[in-house]
This record gives sequence, structure tokens and C-alpha cells, in this order.
Amino acid sequence: MRKAYFDHVATNPLLPEVLDAMMPYFTVEFGNPLSVYDLGQKARDAIENARSEVASLLNVKPSTIIFTSSGAEANNFALKGIALARQNEGKHIIVSRVEHHSILNTARSLEKMGFVVTWIPVDKYGFVDPEVIRKAIIKDTILISITHASSEIGTIEPIEEIVKIAKDKNVIVHADGVATCGNIPVDIKALGVDLYSIAAHQFYGPKGAGALYIREGLRIVPLIYGGIQEFGRRAGTENVPAIVGMGKAASLAKRDLDLRMKHNKELRDRIIEGILKIPNIYLTGHPTERLPHHASFVVEFIEGEAMLLLLSMKGIYAASGSACSSKALKSSPVLLSMGISPALAQGSIVFSVGISNTLEDVDYLLNEFPLVVNKLREMSPFTKGWDTSKGDKCYTGG
Amino acid sequence: MRKAYFDHVATNPLLPEVLDAMMPYFTVEFGNPLSVYDLGQKARDAIENARSEVASLLNVKPSTIIFTSSGAEANNFALKGIALARQNEGKHIIVSRVEHHSILNTARSLEKMGFVVTWIPVDKYGFVDPEVIRKAIIKDTILISITHASSEIGTIEPIEEIVKIAKDKNVIVHADGVATCGNIPVDIKALGVDLYSIAAHQFYGPKGAGALYIREGLRIVPLIYGGIQEFGRRAGTENVPAIVGMGKAASLAKRDLDLRMKHNKELRDRIIEGILKIPNIYLTGHPTERLPHHASFVVEFIEGEAMLLLLSMKGIYAASGSACSSKALKSSPVLLSMGISPALAQGSIVFSVGISNTLEDVDYLLNEFPLVVNKLREMSPFTKGWDTSKGDKCYTGG
Repeated sequence: MRKAYFDHVATNPLLPEVLDAMMPYFTVEFGNPLSVYDLGQKARDAIENARSEVASLLNVKPSTIIFTSSGAEANNFALKGIALARQNEGKHIIVSRVEHHSILNTARSLEKMGFVVTWIPVDKYGFVDPEVIRKAIIKDTILISITHASSEIGTIEPIEEIVKIAKDKNVIVHADGVATCGNIPVDIKALGVDLYSIAAHQFYGPKGAGALYIREGLRIVPLIYGGIQEFGRRAGTENVPAIVGMGKAASLAKRDLDLRMKHNKELRDRIIEGILKIPNIYLTGHPTERLPHHASFVVEFIEGEAMLLLLSMKGIYAASGSACSSKALKSSPVLLSMGISPALAQGSIVFSVGISNTLEDVDYLLNEFPLVVNKLREMSPFTKGWDTSKGDKCYTGG
Repeated sequence: MRKAYFDHVATNPLLPEVLDAMMPYFTVEFGNPLSVYDLGQKARDAIENARSEVASLLNVKPSTIIFTSSGAEANNFALKGIALARQNEGKHIIVSRVEHHSILNTARSLEKMGFVVTWIPVDKYGFVDPEVIRKAIIKDTILISITHASSEIGTIEPIEEIVKIAKDKNVIVHADGVATCGNIPVDIKALGVDLYSIAAHQFYGPKGAGALYIREGLRIVPLIYGGIQEFGRRAGTENVPAIVGMGKAASLAKRDLDLRMKHNKELRDRIIEGILKIPNIYLTGHPTERLPHHASFVVEFIEGEAMLLLLSMKGIYAASGSACSSKALKSSPVLLSMGISPALAQGSIVFSVGISNTLEDVDYLLNEFPLVVNKLREMSPFTKGWDTSKGDKCYTGG
């Protein structure tokens, strides 16, 4: 059966060069980076080399990069670490409604600890309005956390403008860059954020490796206490092979980013153009200010899960909402926040392309997907009395 | 140059079977376990298989095993998770003075959050006295955390007796089993603990994989919030290859444990016997109730770091104190707590054997180590006026 993997926001295969770079650290170079002898020194050097590669991708100093086990850990570390470090200065935090669950649920846990969270709404494209953030900042505000781009809708948020507003008021800004880093240019110096989360498996690096950028001099409380690893900011024996793989993946992403973006955007645009020809399907997120590898839709009258299953029977892999919630079977809070009805939000589907996808993959998708939609609509009770020939429209959003 | 790795408490090389088991999950089976399609299902199945293998090694149900990124993360999760979940019932925690830094420093962070910690002393062998714990328990006590064995001194603590005392008083017990799991039989049902931390790289599994056993029905607050991974108890895209490797390593540890213990103990005993022939060197920890792969000493007049460096020039790898503190250059709090003077504690050295060590490795060590000790003592200002031929003894401890 033909296979077409369009779920690069869920995870990615390793690039062969990345796996090659990792291999020695599973075998001969197995030392603990804290050991004083040469075997430890080599592991230490490998980690510091990876730190430089990741820092270079983000245009920051290596010492500002702290390795974690995932993007989720980096997000937890950023929010809880800054909240606890600055709680004497204030207990107010600002978070958008299109954040990943690792931000949403961490913010909720901080509410239980006595912090107050303002949840910033978004417009129909999923944009956060910087002026709304300006108005939400109060004397007690210590932290703003906004995703650089949501992997559910692809919209790229105006982080630079938000940072300018926050800097005026001495508020720290964290951006969740898990979906962006390696997929669009990320220059942290230009963005101006104080903290930035990334995950290696989003740019063809390994699972089990993430990082948090922490601006030089910024005080933060550790999430994982213990030994002196990662400048005393994140304890636990380092996952050396995964960190090495993350470094390699970062250096390849830096080298190939323009090519990847061009390739991905071409396929992505073809997907959007082809799929919007099907009646009663709507693009979610902004049409142009979006991740170049990301095409997301809501499909009327049918459910995302059913589409995914029928597609997978044809070897086509896609997502419905965030991978982290796809099995929770709830309407996506991200889509709801954009004014999409709960019923329509159930029909969410996301196609995300990658460097190994081809035009033939896209044509296969564009051939098969309408058949899947039709088949499910024929079975759906919601389509009763609805006639595509009349161009009936149920969606009243963007 | 001949190589002899005697630092298995720091970390271990992967067993070839473990790496083989991991490899497909770096390449063809790269799916995200939360994805609904077959590629995700296979990753999910692989994780659940690994969970069963780890559970089987510990004699518990698979659903009680939560994968983490390290033993340190498991320790942080256990302490903070139970402290936060039970803080309305009391804010008193009991911890021993021979804990790993990931317990010590987490307990200190809880002190800053308003919890009260009682630090239980140990005897000259590093034993915690269960009767001292009984006396330390007050109405407010919610949690006791004791290491199953310290990787610095090897002494195996009387966890079962501590659990009996705690159960009487409705106090939860966590044991740090990072140094024990895979090295001695660990039957959690028999031990009776409520929580137990382990790390895969301590038993020839990969770095980046740990686990926390959590007794069925026990309430715990997550350390990492986000998606619904790990039954909603630990978020972040699962590190599938590392988890698979941990499962394989657990199944091999279960199969080979008796053989490994016999092999390790034989080499360990030969090391202890040989090294104690050198004047003014003392075994730390208990002579018999200790990890079978673990031989630890304090050497008078010289420093651990210097011994490690000279040994490594001969291809011999060892540790001085815990790997997580070895570069911090402070006297080990574990050794100080046993009544060893700060000066003598600086002369700490730990040899830990593994399944690939041979008798020849041990003989090489026993040949080279006295030369290293003599060379350093000749250079040491502290040896002035001291004459080995008189059998001078400076150590007044065990």
C-alpha cells in the first residue's frame, strides 16, 4: 500500500545523519558527562557541542540553552520556574487560549497554587492581539506565555510586538516554539523573548530531547532538582545520545531551512488549494501568516477521528487537533477559542508536510480525501436535508 | 592501553540486545504513541510492552509504572507530587542524610515552600535506624523517603522495616531504587513501599529513561503537565526508543540477575580484599549488607579527584562520591553523615563492577591502585611525619 505521512506536527522520523551522530554515544562513548576521566570528558564535549549547535540555530549564546527531555518539560519549567522565582513581585500570569496543553494545564496548576491567570482570547484566525495583552497587564503581572505558533492551526503569533509591550512594563515573556523551531527562522535576539521552548523531534531530531532558552541573568527555579548538570538548572544524568542528535538536527535545520520551507510551502499550498475545493470544508488559522508546512481544516458533518481512521486505511497519516489531546476525544479548546462551534470543531483535520513528502503524495491525498469525506458524510445523520449543490454554509466563522 | 571500567554506578554501556530492540523505533516505527493510526498504535504497543517488562522486574502491575526521563525526575516527581497532593493532611516529611542529591535538593526546595523536613541521621555504616524513624513520625507526617541503597556507600537500607512502621501511622513511603533496581532483587510487593524510583542506565538500559512506581489508587500531583500520556500523570511525547530499551533491559535483568550478582560479588570481594591491604584505607558502608557490585573506600591523606585522574591515565575508571556531585568538589554529605571527617571524606573512591568486568580487570586494578596511592601520598603535605610501617591510624569511624 502507498504511504503518505502528513503528520509532521505529531512527530518526525530521524534524519539518517542524526542517527549516525547519535550511535557512538549508545556504545563506545557511553560515559557519564559528570565523570572526571576521558570517557566522561568526551560525553561532556559532545553535549557542549550540541548546545552550540542548538544555540546557533536560535542565534543565542550556548550558555542560555538548557536541555530538557521534551518540549512539554521545557514549557512546564518556564512557567513554573518563573512563577516561583518571581512570586514575591506578583502573582499574575497572562496566557493565550491557543496554547498547547503543556502550557494550559501548567497555568491551571499555578491557579491552584494561588496565581491568577488571564486567558487572552484570539480572533477568528487564532491571532493574539498585542493590544489586548497591553490592557491585560497589571502591576502584579510577572509573566506572559504565548505560543509562537499553534500546531493545531498554524497561525504565527506576533511575538515581537508582544515583547515590546511587555518590556515597557518589566514583564517576562516566554514563547512556546515547539512547532516553529526548525520550521521557520527563529532568531531569539530579534524576537526579544526571555524564554523559548523547543523540541528536537519537531525538526527531525530524536524524541526525548527538548530545550529551554533562558535569557542570560534570568532567575528561574528548577523543575528537576539534583546534581549540577545543565549549570545546576536541570538535574538528571544527561541523555547524551538524544542531546547529540538534537544538536545535529539543529545544525541540519540551520543549513537547510530555506530549502525545507520552499519545499514544504509548495506542497502545503497545493493541499490547501485542493482540499478547499471540497464543499463545506474551511481552512483554520490564518491563510498566509502560518507555518509553511501546515494545512488545517474543519470539515462539516463528520468527525476528525473517523477521517483519520479511513485515511490510515489508505496509508495516509494525519492529525485531528493536537496529538497530545487526540485520544482525549474532546473538542479542541484552540478551535473553540476561535469561535468555531463545538460540533464543527469535531471535524478538525491537520495535514502537515515534511521534507520527504512528494508532489505524488499530495496528489494521492487529494485523490483519496474527497472519497473519505463523501463516504463519512453519506453515513452521517447531520448531513440529512443538506444539499451541497445549493452551497449551503453552516460555518459562520472565518 | 588496557581499559577497566569500574564506574557502573555512574552509568553503564547498553547491552547489544537493548540497542537492537531500540533501533526500529528510531527509523521505521517512529510514530507518536498518541496518533490514532497504525504507526501510532505500534509505538503505543511498544510502550505498553516495555511497561509490562519493567513491572515484571519489580513484581507489580503494569499500570503502576510511570515512565520518566531519569531517576532524578522520578525522585522529584515522588517527593513534590506527594507533598503537594497531601499538604492539607500535613506538611512534615522525613528524609535520610544518605539520600541522592535529587532527593536532598528536592526536600530543601519543599522546605522553602513551607514543608518541614526531618533529616534522619545514619550510623557509621550508613544505616538508617527504623526506630529513629518511628520517633520522628508526628501527626503532621505525610511522607518518608529513604534510599534503598546509596550509590556512594552501597549500604542496603532496611526498607521493609521502615514501611511496617510507616503503615501503622498512615505515612506514605518512597524508596529511591536507582542504585538497586537491576542489581539486587527488588520485589515491591514484598517491600511494601508506595513509590519507588528506578533508572534504566543503571541496569544496561539507555540514558533518558527512568520510571516511578506509584501504588494503585495513590493520589499524586504531576511534575510535568500537558497531554494525556502516561495515564495523564507525566506529559510530553514519549521517548519511545528509550522506553523500549528500558523494557528490554528490565527483562534481561530479570532473566540474568542471579548470574550477574554472583559474578559481580566475586569481583567486588576480590577488590575489597585487595584494597584493604593498602595501609590507611577504610571501607565505607556496611561490609556485607551492601550492593553486590559496589566497593567504596576512603583513602587517607589524598584526594579522590587526584586518584581518579591518575587511575584514568592507566585506563581505570572509578568514581569519587556520587557522579552528580563529583564535579562540585565538596565533601560528600553522605560520608560526613556517617561520622567521617571532612578531610578524610575528600579521599573517597568508589569501584563498581559490571557484567563485562573480568578477574584480569580486577588484578590490573589491584596492581595499579597501590602505585597511584603511593605516588599521591608522596606528594601530599598531609603525609608528613606519618609512617605506614608503624601502622598509624587516623580514621576514628567504622
